[in-house]
Amino acid sequence: MKRHALHHATTVPYAYGRDKDHLFLRLRTAKDDAKSVRVFYRDRYHFRKPFLLQNLELRHTTPDFDYYEVVIALPRNRYAYYFEIQDREGKRYYYDERGIREHRKSPMKPFQFPYLAPEDLYPGEDWLKEAVCYQIFPDRFRKGEGDAQPWREGELRPWDSPVTSKGFYGGNLAGIREKLPYLEELGVTLLYLTPVFESSSNHKYNTKDYLSIDPHFGTLGEFQRLVKECHDRGIRVVLDAVFNHTGLDFFAFQDLLTRQEASPYGTWYHPDAYPVSREKINYYTFAHGIAHMPKLNLGEAEARAYFLHVARYWIKEADVDGYRLDVCDELSHDFLRDLRRAVKEEKAEAVLIGEIMHEAEAFLDGRELDAIMNYPFRDAQVDFFAKDHLTAESFTGLLQEQNVRYREEIVDQMWNLLGSHDTPRFLTEAGGDKAKLKLAAAFQFLYRGVPYIYYGDEVGLSGGRDPLCRGTMPWDPEKQDLDLYGFHQFLARLRKTHGVLVRGTVEFPEVREKAFILARKDDQEEILALFNRGTAPEDFSSALMTDHEPLGNFPSPQRGVVPPLGLLLYRRPITNEEDQP
Amino acid sequence: MKRHALHHATTVPYAYGRDKDHLFLRLRTAKDDAKSVRVFYRDRYHFRKPFLLQNLELRHTTPDFDYYEVVIALPRNRYAYYFEIQDREGKRYYYDERGIREHRKSPMKPFQFPYLAPEDLYPGEDWLKEAVCYQIFPDRFRKGEGDAQPWREGELRPWDSPVTSKGFYGGNLAGIREKLPYLEELGVTLLYLTPVFESSSNHKYNTKDYLSIDPHFGTLGEFQRLVKECHDRGIRVVLDAVFNHTGLDFFAFQDLLTRQEASPYGTWYHPDAYPVSREKINYYTFAHGIAHMPKLNLGEAEARAYFLHVARYWIKEADVDGYRLDVCDELSHDFLRDLRRAVKEEKAEAVLIGEIMHEAEAFLDGRELDAIMNYPFRDAQVDFFAKDHLTAESFTGLLQEQNVRYREEIVDQMWNLLGSHDTPRFLTEAGGDKAKLKLAAAFQFLYRGVPYIYYGDEVGLSGGRDPLCRGTMPWDPEKQDLDLYGFHQFLARLRKTHGVLVRGTVEFPEVREKAFILARKDDQEEILALFNRGTAPEDFSSALMTDHEPLGNFPSPQRGVVPPLGLLLYRRPITNEEDQP
Repeated sequence: MKRHALHHATTVPYAYGRDKDHLFLRLRTAKDDAKSVRVFYRDRYHFRKPFLLQNLELRHTTPDFDYYEVVIALPRNRYAYYFEIQDREGKRYYYDERGIREHRKSPMKPFQFPYLAPEDLYPGEDWLKEAVCYQIFPDRFRKGEGDAQPWREGELRPWDSPVTSKGFYGGNLAGIREKLPYLEELGVTLLYLTPVFESSSNHKYNTKDYLSIDPHFGTLGEFQRLVKECHDRGIRVVLDAVFNHTGLDFFAFQDLLTRQEASPYGTWYHPDAYPVSREKINYYTFAHGIAHMPKLNLGEAEARAYFLHVARYWIKEADVDGYRLDVCDELSHDFLRDLRRAVKEEKAEAVLIGEIMHEAEAFLDGRELDAIMNYPFRDAQVDFFAKDHLTAESFTGLLQEQNVRYREEIVDQMWNLLGSHDTPRFLTEAGGDKAKLKLAAAFQFLYRGVPYIYYGDEVGLSGGRDPLCRGTMPWDPEKQDLDLYGFHQFLARLRKTHGVLVRGTVEFPEVREKAFILARKDDQEEILALFNRGTAPEDFSSALMTDHEPLGNFPSPQRGVVPPLGLLLYRRPITNEEDQP
Repeated sequence: MKRHALHHATTVPYAYGRDKDHLFLRLRTAKDDAKSVRVFYRDRYHFRKPFLLQNLELRHTTPDFDYYEVVIALPRNRYAYYFEIQDREGKRYYYDERGIREHRKSPMKPFQFPYLAPEDLYPGEDWLKEAVCYQIFPDRFRKGEGDAQPWREGELRPWDSPVTSKGFYGGNLAGIREKLPYLEELGVTLLYLTPVFESSSNHKYNTKDYLSIDPHFGTLGEFQRLVKECHDRGIRVVLDAVFNHTGLDFFAFQDLLTRQEASPYGTWYHPDAYPVSREKINYYTFAHGIAHMPKLNLGEAEARAYFLHVARYWIKEADVDGYRLDVCDELSHDFLRDLRRAVKEEKAEAVLIGEIMHEAEAFLDGRELDAIMNYPFRDAQVDFFAKDHLTAESFTGLLQEQNVRYREEIVDQMWNLLGSHDTPRFLTEAGGDKAKLKLAAAFQFLYRGVPYIYYGDEVGLSGGRDPLCRGTMPWDPEKQDLDLYGFHQFLARLRKTHGVLVRGTVEFPEVREKAFILARKDDQEEILALFNRGTAPEDFSSALMTDHEPLGNFPSPQRGVVPPLGLLLYRRPITNEEDQP
C-alpha cells in the first residue's frame, strides 16, 4: 500500500456533521490502491463495547487519488473511530490518530469527533443549490423607462456602438425590470447585479455612497420595486458589495483628504504617510496605484461597524437575498465572520458569495462564505472545451479535486461561471465556435453547483477582455442567437424538472482522451451526459443499458455514438430493486 | 519523486501569518525524497514582475515525511506563490494550485494567500510560552488556616490515610496560599486549580454555583487574596471551568426537576422526555448515565449568555488569567468562539486551555483555544520512558507529527503533562522507577511547550488510576523525595535562564533504538540533551563539538557517553560567524 497517500483528518472536508445526527467521513488512498476501506466506530465513552463496522464507498477519483466516503450515526453523537484499509493483495492496514500500522494493538488511539453540536452544522441553502444564476452589468443590459435621473445630451454612447472603458450606455433598473419576463422564461431564479450604489464610473466599483442607489440607475423606490417583482417571479437578488475599498469621493476618504491628520477617518484606511495625497497615491489601494480605490481597514472597529450597517441596511430596506463580495479574499476572515453573523441575523436565508478567483478553503469552512464565484471551474471549462489545453482526464481530475476540497454543501452552491465582466466571454475564448459554448453550457447545467449565465452569453454575445466583455445586450431578435437562447432554456428546464441534477451523485464512469461520460444519479433516476470534445465520433454505446432513453433532441449517427463537438443525454428511471447510490 | 506525499494547503498549519509582515509556508515531501525545495513568490497583482525566490529549510522529519519551511515577506502582504521541488536525481517538479507538473507552463496557477490581515493573526501569549505549570487538586494539597467554612467532626479523613473516591481531606485555598513560597522556589509561574466553585463532591466537577467559591475552600475574599499573592510572586492562575455539564443541584436543573415542562430551563439541557427523572436518567449527561452531571445545551442563547457571564465574572472579580475547560471537546466550536471573544474582551492576555485527550486540530486554529492539555504528549512519554512500548524513532516521530499538526505558536503553548487527576501518576506508570520519571521530566522541560507538574510528582508521590492518583500532598520532608524536588527545581531554573528552551528550534539529530539527542538552538546558544532509555551505555561523543560544555551535574563514564536510563546535557554558545537557525 502506498502509505504516503493515506489521509484523514478530523476537520472539514474529511470529517463534519452532515446533519445533527450524521457524521460524514472521508478517507484518501492512492488511486487503485485499496480493495476495501472500512470504519470501526463507537461512542467514545463505550470503552468496552465492540466497535461497529461500516464500509466506505469509493466516491471520487482523481489522477492520483481515490476518495472513500461514509456517513455514520450514533445516538449521542460522540464518535471514536479508526479505519481498516485492505490493499489489492488483501493485506490489511489500520489507521488511527497515531498513524498507519499493520496490526491492531490494544489500545488503539482512535480518531475522535467528540461531539456533533447542532450549532456547528453548515446546512447550506436549498434555494441556492437549486438556483440558475444570471449576472447583469446594469449600464449595459437595458435602458428602461423609470425614475432614473435622465442623462444629458452627449453623455451616453449609442447602444450599438463599440464598447469603451469609460463610456456610459444608459442601462438602468427599470430596464432590468422590463426584462424580468425574459429572464423568467429563460429559467433564471437568481439575479446577481454588479454594483448599483452611487458611483462615478460605469462599473461602479468605486463607491461614493453605499446607502444610495446610483441616480442614473434609479431611485430607492425603483430598486425596491425591482426586488419585489423579482421575488414575485421566484427570482432572488444578490447585490455586489464592494467592502475592500471605497471610491475616492466616499465621505470618509474625502474627510481624510481634507482634514488629513485631524480626520477621524485615517484609521479607516491605510495611509503610508501624511499628507495623504491622491497624486502621490501614498495609501494602500486596490491592486497597485489605483488612486480612486483606496483600501479600507476593516480591522478598525468603527469602519467595521459602518459596513456591517450597510450590509444590514439593504436587507432591511429592500429585502435583498445576499451579497457577492468584491475582492473578497482581501477582506479579513475576522470581518467575514462578523459580516456573516450580521447578515444572517437580518435574513436567515441570505447568502454571501466571494469574488475569489482561486481555490478558497480558508473562506469556505462554513463560517464565512456560502460559495465563491468559481473561477477554477471557469478556467477548467475554458482550457478543456474552448482551448483544448487539457485532456478529459485532467479536466475531470481538476473537478474531482475541487469536489473533495470543500464541504459537500458548499460544492453544490458554487457559482459555476463560464465568464464574467472580468474575463473574455466564453464564445470569444472558443474562437467563436458555438458548439464549444454549447458543450460548456451543458456541462454547467448538468454538473453539480449553480449554473451561471453572464448576460448575453445566452444569445451569443462575444467579447474579449475588459472592456470588450462588457458590451451592451442586443435586444433586436435579429441580433440574438435564438438557437443558443433556446438551448439555455432547455438546460434550465432540465435542471428544474430533474432534481438529480441538483442533488444527485457525480461520477465520470468513462473518461477518454477528448471525451467522457458524466453520470448523475439519485434514488429516482440516472442521467448520463456523453460529452465529445474531439474531432472524431466517440462510441459510448456500451455504457448504455436497454432502459436508457434519450433526453432532448441531439443529433447522433446511432445510439450512444457522439458526433465531434457533440453531446448526447440519456435517462433511465431507478427501480426499487437496484442498489441506491 | 513520490507524488502522493507532496502536500501544501493555503490554510493552517501549511500557510499562516507569522506576524503582520511575514507569511509562514510549509511543504511536505516523502522522507528523504527531495534534494531541495524552493518557493517562487510575488505580489499577486504583479503579473509581469519576475517571481522572487527563496529556499525552504528542512525543519521536521517523521518516519514517513519531511517538512520544509520558510518565512517570506512582501510590502502589501498579498502573496501568489508556487513551489519547485528537486528530487534526489536532480529532476525538478512544480507544484501549484492545480497540482504537480514537470514543467512550468505559462500560465501557472499559483497558490494564493490573498491578504495577510492583522486581525487574522494568532500571536500567542508570551507568558504562556514561558510558563512552568503546576496543577493542584485543592482538597488534597494543603489544609491551611483561613476563612474556609470549618469541617465538622468526622467529615474529614485523616491527611495520611489511603485515598478514597468520596473522601474529603480538607485542603483549601489558604493552604495553597501558605505554600506559594514552596511553588515559587520550585520555579512555578502558572497555577492550574481544578474546580473551586461550590460543589458537593471532593473534585467539584458537578458545579452547584458557578458564582461562588466552595465554602470549604474559602470565601471570595480568600480567593481574591490568593490570586493577588500569586500575581505578586509572578504566578498566573488558571481556573477549571466546567461548562459541559452542571451539577444536579445547579439552580437551573433543580428548577427543571421541580417544574418540568413549565420550567424555562428545559432548553438549557437535553431532556430525552418528560418528566425528567434523576432516577431514570432520561437526559443527556456527561459520559453515560452520570446522573449528577447533566449536559448543558450551549446552543441555547440564554444558557450561553449565562456561562459567558460566568467566564467574565471571575476575571472581573478576581483577575484570573484564564480557564481550563473541562470536557472541552464536547463544547461546540460556536460556543468556544464566543467564549474566546468574551474572555479576551475582559483580559487580553487571558488564555483558554482545553481538556482534550486526543489531537485537536479543529479547536486549535487560533480562533478557539490557546492550547490543550497535551495527553498525546503524555501518552508518548509513558509509552517510551515508562513502558518501553515505543522505539525512540516512533517516539520522536509522534512528537514531530504533532509539531506539524498545529500553528507554531500553539505548539509552544501546549500543556505538556506527564499525568493528571485523570491518569495514573507517571512514577506509578514507570513501576516506581525514579530514573524513568527523571528522564521524562527532563524531556518535558527541555522540549518545546509548557512543562506541567501534577502536584506531588515533584516529590515522588505515586498512585494508580482515580482515586489513587489524587492522594494528599506529603509535607513532612521525610516523606518527600527532595532529590526529585531539586531535580525539578534545576530543570525549571534551566528553562528560565535559557530562552533557547522556550523558543529555540527543535531537532533530533540522532535517533537510535532506545536513545536520542534532542537539540535546541537559537541565535545565542545550542543545548544538546542526550537521552538514553536503554539498558546499555550509549556513546554520543561524536555528536559533540569541542566547545560543547557540560550543563548540570550528571554522572557519565566519559564525555558524551550516556549511562543506562541516563541523561547528559551540553551547551555551546553560538558565535556570530555561524549560520543562524
